Amino acid sequence: MAPHRAPEPPAGAAAVTENRTGLGEFDRIARFFAPLAADPDAFGLTDDAALLRSSPGRELVVTVDAMVEGVHFLPDDPAELVARKLLRVNLSDLAAMAAAPVGYVLTTALPAQRDDVWLADFARGLALDQATYGIRLLGGDSVSTPGPITLTVTAFGEVEPGRAVRRNGARPDDLVWVTGTIGDGALGLLAATGRLVGATPPHREFLADRYRLPQPRSGLGPALAGLATAMLDISDGLVGDLGHIVETSRVAAEIDAAAIPLSAAATAALAIDPARLSLVLSGGDDYELLFTAPPHAAEDFRRLADRHKVPITPIGRIRAGRGVTVRDAEGVEIRLSRGGYRHF
Amino acid sequence: MAPHRAPEPPAGAAAVTENRTGLGEFDRIARFFAPLAADPDAFGLTDDAALLRSSPGRELVVTVDAMVEGVHFLPDDPAELVARKLLRVNLSDLAAMAAAPVGYVLTTALPAQRDDVWLADFARGLALDQATYGIRLLGGDSVSTPGPITLTVTAFGEVEPGRAVRRNGARPDDLVWVTGTIGDGALGLLAATGRLVGATPPHREFLADRYRLPQPRSGLGPALAGLATAMLDISDGLVGDLGHIVETSRVAAEIDAAAIPLSAAATAALAIDPARLSLVLSGGDDYELLFTAPPHAAEDFRRLADRHKVPITPIGRIRAGRGVTVRDAEGVEIRLSRGGYRHF
Repeated sequence: MAPHRAPEPPAGAAAVTENRTGLGEFDRIARFFAPLAADPDAFGLTDDAALLRSSPGRELVVTVDAMVEGVHFLPDDPAELVARKLLRVNLSDLAAMAAAPVGYVLTTALPAQRDDVWLADFARGLALDQATYGIRLLGGDSVSTPGPITLTVTAFGEVEPGRAVRRNGARPDDLVWVTGTIGDGALGLLAATGRLVGATPPHREFLADRYRLPQPRSGLGPALAGLATAMLDISDGLVGDLGHIVETSRVAAEIDAAAIPLSAAATAALAIDPARLSLVLSGGDDYELLFTAPPHAAEDFRRLADRHKVPITPIGRIRAGRGVTVRDAEGVEIRLSRGGYRHF
Repeated sequence: MAPHRAPEPPAGAAAVTENRTGLGEFDRIARFFAPLAADPDAFGLTDDAALLRSSPGRELVVTVDAMVEGVHFLPDDPAELVARKLLRVNLSDLAAMAAAPVGYVLTTALPAQRDDVWLADFARGLALDQATYGIRLLGGDSVSTPGPITLTVTAFGEVEPGRAVRRNGARPDDLVWVTGTIGDGALGLLAATGRLVGATPPHREFLADRYRLPQPRSGLGPALAGLATAMLDISDGLVGDLGHIVETSRVAAEIDAAAIPLSAAATAALAIDPARLSLVLSGGDDYELLFTAPPHAAEDFRRLADRHKVPITPIGRIRAGRGVTVRDAEGVEIRLSRGGYRHF
């Protein structure tokens, strides 16, 4: 994790000064990041690279996600929470491939005004979730930026050879399943920004937490290796993400809006304003798993879900054809448009 | 390589609009990046993650480097060159571990004003160096930013198990070697920014090119696996980087300034202003290998260097003790200070 810098800022470049407390990049790495990299393969972050090893007989999987201040999180969001969300969106991608998390490398581009208090909070968040998910920091890069905080995590997972679950295996008659509850992420963004009119404080808090801190399905995901025919994690919205599965699998899907599992808080929010159904169907940031599997496997899936204490719900079926159709309780198609949804 | 975005910019965040030409992120990925990811393990960039495989019996090595517009490159630098430098600084880190390059994942955080012409040039640069170094794009993330272009590459290499060369193995009496010529990077930054007074146009051009486009030693580096006792690539400057080796190896080093290999352009620049020696000794961005090895191995190293057509030069020796000492042709110690250097 060598600090990476030009010999001096190029002429014409914005001036980038040392951070306020004057701790150099080497000291920052030694203080905040080296304690997170106790694994011998990380070489204490002193080398140019780290070793990357999987368990014997396992295959490695790699994913990468970036977060930018002002785009993916708010400037005032607690650094600890930013760190945990950054790790968790990556862990959710690994779970969606049915891979068990192993470790990660990290890049931080920080403006000079961010002091070591921010970095200490950020490192504490990483440490917390390293412990929660049993992962290790393997290396990284630490640079200055005249712009917003920009963070990148490349995460590594492992899976039995040939058993990673892709998006392209959905087949006609497969059931469409989701984990947990859907729509909390999008409703939570409204709640976190004071725009969820009419919700009770406990519901607002529940939904905002769901938006701020995803719960990657790192236990159940790997258990579905070789069993689910297609899988991804819902980050772009239920209908949009199911669209990715049917497109790469060259099939169609029908989902039953009434079957979509909702939290109590989301149910209450929909009762106040039924138009919020469009957020449930097409809002993002749920980080729940969306997967398909033949109907005869339903009982196996329920047992796995029980074992991992993750609720799973069938919400529809794969068909021959193209596209995603959503039907209400009467079987009438719900059409999504940019402005919301309407019945036909 | 899923485009990653919040459902909408959070309240209070800078507005981030679609790029000017209106190509969405999915289309941008399909047009510019998917052609770079022909490898089946990359799944055409349609999935949440990619497979990461090494050759049978090899161990994987991972490194990561970020570059920020205005810090590591100029806003007007050609996008093709930015792409190639981004890959090459990572490949240089792999070479420094004696690892042969395999592939990489990429994160781009781009401001809305950067149009698809920039991205097309950037992708062409990646394609060029993928071919040059035999590497493949495995995945990535593409986000918007209200700030400067921020790019991260996580690169993967492979090495025989246990033969990666670290920084901590230098032993007393080892020779200190460098590849290529030293100081061109720092002098090249002066040349590229119009500050290398007195140099001829061909010399300015040569040096500026050396600064703009590193030549990672991706052939020789892996050949030194298990042979060099310590190695890194010179990015922080010869003396500073040798300092990293002696610190982690708990030894000292003496180098002979007169033995440091210089390009004709650097020799001319020093003749014009001998004070520029400080840039040769402590300027960065050379991306040459600096390694140590027992003296009896010298002939083996020369043969390997010949085979890979990379000049190597012994410039000093490891001693017991601490720190790095530089001596001039008369054996007098040259002391480096922030302002330059002085004789004692």
